[in-house]
Amino acid sequence: MATEPDPATRAGREFFTTRTVGETLAGFRPPRRTPAETIPLDRATHRVPVTPVTAPHALPGFARSTVDGYAVRAADTYGVSEGLPGYLRVAGAVAMGAEPEVVVGPGTVASMPTGGVLPAGADAVVMIEYTQEAMADTIEVVRPVAPGDGVVRADEDAAPGAELVPSGRPLRAQDLGMLAAAGVTSVTVHARPRVTILSTGDEVVPPGTAVLRPGQVRDASAVALAAMVADAGGEPAAGGIVPDDPQALEAALRAALTASDLIVISAGSSVGARDETAGVVRRLGQPGIWCHGLAIRPGKPTLLADCGGVPVIGLPGNPRSALVVFRLIGIALVRLVGGCTMPPPEPAVRARLARDLASATGRLDIVQVRVHDGIATPLFGLSALLSVLTAADGYVIVPEEATGLDAGAEVEVTLYR
Amino acid sequence: MATEPDPATRAGREFFTTRTVGETLAGFRPPRRTPAETIPLDRATHRVPVTPVTAPHALPGFARSTVDGYAVRAADTYGVSEGLPGYLRVAGAVAMGAEPEVVVGPGTVASMPTGGVLPAGADAVVMIEYTQEAMADTIEVVRPVAPGDGVVRADEDAAPGAELVPSGRPLRAQDLGMLAAAGVTSVTVHARPRVTILSTGDEVVPPGTAVLRPGQVRDASAVALAAMVADAGGEPAAGGIVPDDPQALEAALRAALTASDLIVISAGSSVGARDETAGVVRRLGQPGIWCHGLAIRPGKPTLLADCGGVPVIGLPGNPRSALVVFRLIGIALVRLVGGCTMPPPEPAVRARLARDLASATGRLDIVQVRVHDGIATPLFGLSALLSVLTAADGYVIVPEEATGLDAGAEVEVTLYR
Repeated sequence: MATEPDPATRAGREFFTTRTVGETLAGFRPPRRTPAETIPLDRATHRVPVTPVTAPHALPGFARSTVDGYAVRAADTYGVSEGLPGYLRVAGAVAMGAEPEVVVGPGTVASMPTGGVLPAGADAVVMIEYTQEAMADTIEVVRPVAPGDGVVRADEDAAPGAELVPSGRPLRAQDLGMLAAAGVTSVTVHARPRVTILSTGDEVVPPGTAVLRPGQVRDASAVALAAMVADAGGEPAAGGIVPDDPQALEAALRAALTASDLIVISAGSSVGARDETAGVVRRLGQPGIWCHGLAIRPGKPTLLADCGGVPVIGLPGNPRSALVVFRLIGIALVRLVGGCTMPPPEPAVRARLARDLASATGRLDIVQVRVHDGIATPLFGLSALLSVLTAADGYVIVPEEATGLDAGAEVEVTLYR
Repeated sequence: MATEPDPATRAGREFFTTRTVGETLAGFRPPRRTPAETIPLDRATHRVPVTPVTAPHALPGFARSTVDGYAVRAADTYGVSEGLPGYLRVAGAVAMGAEPEVVVGPGTVASMPTGGVLPAGADAVVMIEYTQEAMADTIEVVRPVAPGDGVVRADEDAAPGAELVPSGRPLRAQDLGMLAAAGVTSVTVHARPRVTILSTGDEVVPPGTAVLRPGQVRDASAVALAAMVADAGGEPAAGGIVPDDPQALEAALRAALTASDLIVISAGSSVGARDETAGVVRRLGQPGIWCHGLAIRPGKPTLLADCGGVPVIGLPGNPRSALVVFRLIGIALVRLVGGCTMPPPEPAVRARLARDLASATGRLDIVQVRVHDGIATPLFGLSALLSVLTAADGYVIVPEEATGLDAGAEVEVTLYR
């Protein structure tokens, strides 16, 4: 099914500045970044720190026992064994969360809970498992310890000034934990990019339209694009549905420009609608259109522009192509604008192709697949069908340099979540 | 570093009902499920439908062109070629989003935009690339089409009553798109599990505590656990910090029981604190404790219980062990209670181990690693150190049956995001 014609065909419908996906990801890098804002730690998951956050003081801040047992001078345990235990006097007990009152001298120990402060004089903790009460106030020790055994140093989790989390990487659960441990209760992060999503097309009606007139379709792209924007760390804003009219589109885009860090248009898929979108975008600001036509299938009629500092993505009109392109190109742009230089990993799995995949060199093919028992089965269907995407577990990329992939080939499947 | 002693040691500190992680994931399946609630589609990403959602009518609902071109009777194109074009009369044009006024009879065509309604009489659409204007109102066609070419059938995306999305699988971006296309603007999903997170320990103080007294530590676990709960689809509730006092813990737990679908306790790590937690949990309700002690490292002092219908997870006191166990066991429980039967895939990558990993049979080891250039380098460090988790890109599981893994072995690294 040739749903997206080759540019070099007799009718002369050319995409003027076609780029490869690789060129686009590497080369289309608008300078816009969202400003910094300071937010409470408990709302900072997946947010992107503007600068590295460092430890205000050493962590844990005191030498701490990692086991239940007895604080000792390690030298007092040298040479002890099951057959020849050492006998040490219990000079006192350390309580949780409090400064020890006991001091450990030669030949003495102090009982310790896990997490307790190592008392003065001690340099190790013997696990309770390697001790036994011998008589009142005296224990047997049956295994030697070295200095530092059973103990976390005062600065072992972090030295003062050490980097706790880097800039540019979305905060993970454990990063929040580390910041909490250090007493950092607010973080300065990039504001979420405000992403306006506009749908265009005389045939497009809101999802809430109960009964369709012949030829009408409900707007499927906007809600799906908004979900992807939010997952990528952006704040989606509904720009509504604009008719196939250049003046209406220009008005909608100009309004969106002032309130957006990024604009996404799912443009009408007819030639006319595409050309009109390009014409309008061209008038919005410099440096303007970076590409009009992407060497990808599905998704060729994609437009990328930087209009006076706001990146604009013009997506194909059919929802499936729009979602495929946005996943590859749009999510990367939302992250870029939001200051994310270390994107989180995507789920993926290696599998064997159930059948041959044909492709053309110079074009990236995105093939939807189901994965079962290590076998990836391509789902074919018109690029207009959204059901192919909902049936898919993920997709396989046939790279630009390949002419196809053979059945049985090992491929990487990027999985949807 | 033996920070978590073997149970069969001379001091006799046993965990009474130790289970493997495999037994736990398969066997500890409390029956609680959150109730259904109906929410708007645009807030439903990652939410879990209670029942499958089906198509109220055929989609797209009308036979639709997938290309720009001309609607034809396919038979009129049979035998045409570049050398011997067919000549057909243009009877009219189909407009976007409207019912065609034109009818395609023998020897005639109608011009079509992508997405337009196929007019009566036509059974295919010829791409504009394979046509050329011959004279006013007449085109040349140079390639034959078969019936159905260039057209999506009225029910090709979904037949009436077809399943659009299954129950039990969190809704993905494209699932929302499909539902919008079908006019489904609200979805009945499982309520988010309310997860109360309690921290215990006399030494534990709130993260906002600017200056620590000797022996005090800030609560690092609660904020990190809350982030994981939210990522798993739950609604975290801060239960606060409870001192190491059985009565205070019991009061806090009884209060949490009525308002929670799941309770998480990061318990004090000393033997006494652990035993007290178990004692209190035992009094909360039937069927009670399912395991006290998990064959995992780090994380052995884990407790799992079902207290009168509310699952309770008692985590180790030290934050790193707590987060490791919660990721493996807790996230699965949040999803179970929230009706998620098809959990989303986790990011993972295959890599080669940079060094040997020792392990004991019968115990699952979770080893934090950095991954670079396909090499997974284990990060060693005391289980008390949170910095090992923040430095890690992911973790390797050394399975229960293994006695270790050799340097160079190919391992699967589950990646943090």
